[in-house]
Amino acid sequence: MDRPAKPAVVLLSGGLDSATTLAIARAEGFACHALSFDYGQRHRAELHAAGAVASAIGVVEHRRATIDLRTFGHSALTDAIAVPKDRDDRAMADGIPITYVPARNTIFLSYALAYAEVIDATDIFIGVNAVDYSGYPDCRPDYIAAFQRMANLATRAGVEGHATAIHAPLIHLSKIEIIRRGLELGVDYALTHSCYDPDESGRPCQHCDACLLRQRAFEELGMTDPLLNA
Amino acid sequence: MDRPAKPAVVLLSGGLDSATTLAIARAEGFACHALSFDYGQRHRAELHAAGAVASAIGVVEHRRATIDLRTFGHSALTDAIAVPKDRDDRAMADGIPITYVPARNTIFLSYALAYAEVIDATDIFIGVNAVDYSGYPDCRPDYIAAFQRMANLATRAGVEGHATAIHAPLIHLSKIEIIRRGLELGVDYALTHSCYDPDESGRPCQHCDACLLRQRAFEELGMTDPLLNA
Repeated sequence: MDRPAKPAVVLLSGGLDSATTLAIARAEGFACHALSFDYGQRHRAELHAAGAVASAIGVVEHRRATIDLRTFGHSALTDAIAVPKDRDDRAMADGIPITYVPARNTIFLSYALAYAEVIDATDIFIGVNAVDYSGYPDCRPDYIAAFQRMANLATRAGVEGHATAIHAPLIHLSKIEIIRRGLELGVDYALTHSCYDPDESGRPCQHCDACLLRQRAFEELGMTDPLLNA
Repeated sequence: MDRPAKPAVVLLSGGLDSATTLAIARAEGFACHALSFDYGQRHRAELHAAGAVASAIGVVEHRRATIDLRTFGHSALTDAIAVPKDRDDRAMADGIPITYVPARNTIFLSYALAYAEVIDATDIFIGVNAVDYSGYPDCRPDYIAAFQRMANLATRAGVEGHATAIHAPLIHLSKIEIIRRGLELGVDYALTHSCYDPDESGRPCQHCDACLLRQRAFEELGMTDPLLNA
């Protein structure tokens, strides 16, 4: 008989990166517990995408936590600040993006740590990427390593000698490499959602940084973004 | 003219320890931004106490964030598990308490980090204590130091070279020393709330670990807990 699969918590936004991360965790044999956040996003398409991706790739359960980042405000993702459009690579790479949410990955990973402790998991997957999002402080390898060290001092599992691993399998990949890996694993990118500023029916704007990054990556792979045909 | 006071975020539960911590931050000259959490506590007396303490000691503002620890459950503070009563010191000190909430301080400090980033603060105060609560992994000095290292890699302030300090001024104090320090600073402990299992009007049960720890400390100082006369 097979051994039961080891549980893992996988942070799942419904975007291209987190969908690929979930597929990687599944391919590594983990029993995946997906975790999404309702954090006052201006648009709901992201949460719908997370549900569709979780069903398509396969998870043990999918929990959604409501968090309250609007208490502190200050981001185009939660406030009524204009999302930048049609920026070139240099503009995107220059400094911390306007769409940065204060301490977001720290809050998300903290919830993942609580969830992991409750289900006796010591593996957490997060789809951060240091290549295309170099402007986000909490997407860098040093940050992930520091979170892991902290996590191992924070929890019952750590105290009992069971080390928690924070897996960031995309951290050194380009967007093209991420998509190539996902396609190998059968990810249906038509289900994912990346746009910072979709219309009311959830269709991508095709002009924000997130839309442009994925369009260009699919183009370089000789493909059309499957989301645009969906 | 005086320089404007430096801003700090102070985690404020409304308990004896966080009230003392707020008084210490004020005495050190910080302009205090208090942060409390509504995390599905079974009783509301704690949040009422936080408001009363913030007003009495003096804060620039007091924000309350609603968080969703019940998504993951597993604690006498949020679930309908019986709170242990009338335990002696040895039973209290033995292992991780039933009232432990998974990753709670990590989640609380992550929100404090977001709040600090929004108000341009690089000082965060938390009333954790390693002496009376040795069973909580996330109350230990090593944990606080690891969180601080992670925080400095997580945020815009860190990237720009402004180090964040996590202050835990009570961490090495006994309950008696905490109360003595608070009384010197004029803290009105009648406003605070510690009980894990109050009655409907918010009065303490006088039998849970939190009640017993503070009663014994006041007794050893030759006092009656002012909460019992309130």
